[in-house]
Amino acid sequence: MYSVCVRGHMMIAHSFRGELFGPAQRLHGATYVVDTEFRAPELSLEGVVVDIGRATQALTAILEGLNFSNLDDDPAFSNQNTTTEFLARTVFERMAERRARGELGPGSERLVSMRVTLHESHVAWAAYEAFLT
Amino acid sequence: MYSVCVRGHMMIAHSFRGELFGPAQRLHGATYVVDTEFRAPELSLEGVVVDIGRATQALTAILEGLNFSNLDDDPAFSNQNTTTEFLARTVFERMAERRARGELGPGSERLVSMRVTLHESHVAWAAYEAFLT
Amino acid sequence: MYSVCVRGHMMIAHSFRGELFGPAQRLHGATYVVDTEFRAPELSLEGVVVDIGRATQALTAILEGLNFSNLDDDPAFSNQNTTTEFLARTVFERMAERRARGELGPGSERLVSMRVTLHESHVAWAAYEAFLT
Amino acid sequence: MYSVCVRGHMMIAHSFRGELFGPAQRLHGATYVVDTEFRAPELSLEGVVVDIGRATQALTAILEGLNFSNLDDDPAFSNQNTTTEFLARTVFERMAERRARGELGPGSERLVSMRVTLHESHVAWAAYEAFLT
Amino acid sequence: MYSVCVRGHMMIAHSFRGELFGPAQRLHGATYVVDTEFRAPELSLEGVVVDIGRATQALTAILEGLNFSNLDDDPAFSNQNTTTEFLARTVFERMAERRARGELGPGSERLVSMRVTLHESHVAWAAYEAFLT
Amino acid sequence: MYSVCVRGHMMIAHSFRGELFGPAQRLHGATYVVDTEFRAPELSLEGVVVDIGRATQALTAILEGLNFSNLDDDPAFSNQNTTTEFLARTVFERMAERRARGELGPGSERLVSMRVTLHESHVAWAAYEAFLT
Repeated sequence: MYSVCVRGHMMIAHSFRGELFGPAQRLHGATYVVDTEFRAPELSLEGVVVDIGRATQALTAILEGLNFSNLDDDPAFSNQNTTTEFLARTVFERMAERRARGELGPGSERLVSMRVTLHESHVAWAAYEAFLT
Repeated sequence: MYSVCVRGHMMIAHSFRGELFGPAQRLHGATYVVDTEFRAPELSLEGVVVDIGRATQALTAILEGLNFSNLDDDPAFSNQNTTTEFLARTVFERMAERRARGELGPGSERLVSMRVTLHESHVAWAAYEAFLT
Repeated sequence: MYSVCVRGHMMIAHSFRGELFGPAQRLHGATYVVDTEFRAPELSLEGVVVDIGRATQALTAILEGLNFSNLDDDPAFSNQNTTTEFLARTVFERMAERRARGELGPGSERLVSMRVTLHESHVAWAAYEAFLT
Repeated sequence: MYSVCVRGHMMIAHSFRGELFGPAQRLHGATYVVDTEFRAPELSLEGVVVDIGRATQALTAILEGLNFSNLDDDPAFSNQNTTTEFLARTVFERMAERRARGELGPGSERLVSMRVTLHESHVAWAAYEAFLT
Repeated sequence: MYSVCVRGHMMIAHSFRGELFGPAQRLHGATYVVDTEFRAPELSLEGVVVDIGRATQALTAILEGLNFSNLDDDPAFSNQNTTTEFLARTVFERMAERRARGELGPGSERLVSMRVTLHESHVAWAAYEAFLT
Repeated sequence: MYSVCVRGHMMIAHSFRGELFGPAQRLHGATYVVDTEFRAPELSLEGVVVDIGRATQALTAILEGLNFSNLDDDPAFSNQNTTTEFLARTVFERMAERRARGELGPGSERLVSMRVTLHESHVAWAAYEAFLT
């Protein structure tokens, strides 16, 4: 299995509901450094897993939709704690939608799975991975 | 599948038996930067894989049991080379025991696997991963 | 000249005023990974620049005063853009005050300068350094 | 499952054919920081996945065969785009051959899979992983 | 003294002349991860060392002038070994010229020095720093 | 001013004397990732600060003299706490001696200063820097 991964980042504000979160119930924020890994069993004729230019453009567009915002005000996340693991899935699903619309270019139908990792600090990260359909 | 990972570290002395190890047969030491990844197929109602506060406390407690010691003198490791891969399993098992005792909090019964990675330098690391029962 | 550096982090929300900041004028947030470097021309009798335990406690206390908060609501920063470079100086000054109060322990009067670096992402950081009096 | 990983690097020139690659069709170059992960379900009597000394020697030898060269002139890659993902497989296969010849030492027959990751910058990497036979 | 630093990268081919360089006399290549640090004694009214948006644009433009090329064919470097330390100075001077032309925006006249660091691998880097006039 | 830096590492055991050190008074150990930065105001005719090959060989030789040992047993350090900051100076002085003996090659007389940094974990490092005579 081959993988290719591209990195971006976003800087957001949010707060969490639930005693579990202690002081993180207050409005705070995070820089998320976001790795998006694409996997395919074979390479294209050009020798790639996915067009890295298009993959980077898609990731940038997804992150721009979240960057410099307060996620508490985003209708997409109403009644939802935007934890790091939840946001990893959000980025995953938005990338999967872009792939389904053909934005990752010819050959991206070969992709079998993706893994999205959000680094929230030098001591913690979360990820979501799944097969693609 | 979702993952959450927390990082800690420990600084220990030890020596290895066996010609395979060359100069590492002498008493020496290591800083191990320890990543502990927890995996679950679904998030809790709060939106988390595991209570990251409790996970960090558990990792800290495990590492304090090894930190600033000479592992050659630890009865838990008699007649055992405390290689990086072996210690990755040690941390894994001690974390699994704490989970079994309920220390990771409600919802941690959903965890299906863990992966423990010990970085011993900028050019080498070892890991142990397994399913949880 | 000798240096010792310890690392911590904080996760905050804030917004900036001024057209210069573009979308960062909106409420957003950041994880700041904070390095605090202490410098002295000579080591103590024990062989250290500063008691690393006390230095870490002081840094932790300073960061807890900012962590998990919206800096826009902090009276200490009213009418002030809490940019990364500004916050580097804030951490510097709070550390200098703790040193002046003796919190860094005997020998810390030998310290001649400090440098505080805040990493806001994998592609940007800011720092403030100055002599101590 | 246990893993051990060792790191090396190489600095090469190459160019790509295909409109997909845009400006990377021109002769350019890359530093590849190469991680080679070895996996085994059980440790050897000495407590290791593989002899890390021999693994490092094998990786160094493989990278020396590519380092400081123009891959466009390498007969092994004629009519082939030497993309990061392709090179990950190349390193994988050369390591697998060395293992088959016994260069990784007694016990390396227990290895069940490998994963080779090439970091091409701070924002992109590619990998190849497969089972060993 | 305050600092702000932004990061970019470029991927180039080149070769060196001189026995000193051993196998690096052959055509090879490198990824350079480029940190550009700007220093000023005081912050602007907005609270910044330099407009980080303009600084990033300037760095991107400078790196695009070198990226995906064979430096041996660049007339700017004829009869010159494009070592990492030499290229650090090249990026420095091109940034200084852009500042002199006003591309870094109002307030950049306050900048007193810059430091450009090129990371060529996980085990080596070079830098050039100087005062600005 | 130009800089070139090369990285190596060592894995040692030691213990500290003095209540200041708390549990680090026990025999323990560390991996030190060692950066050695060389500085010169001008480049050589070949375009380098120092012959990076010779610099790396010198650093490797210095670290081999300490690697895989218990520093408590090293006569060079009797009655001395081998703290990270102390060891940074030790590596500095041993490198300075090698330069004085001509081991860094022609042109190394131009070097004006060095800085040695020892990373002891992901959250702490120490350094020593001085001019060369």
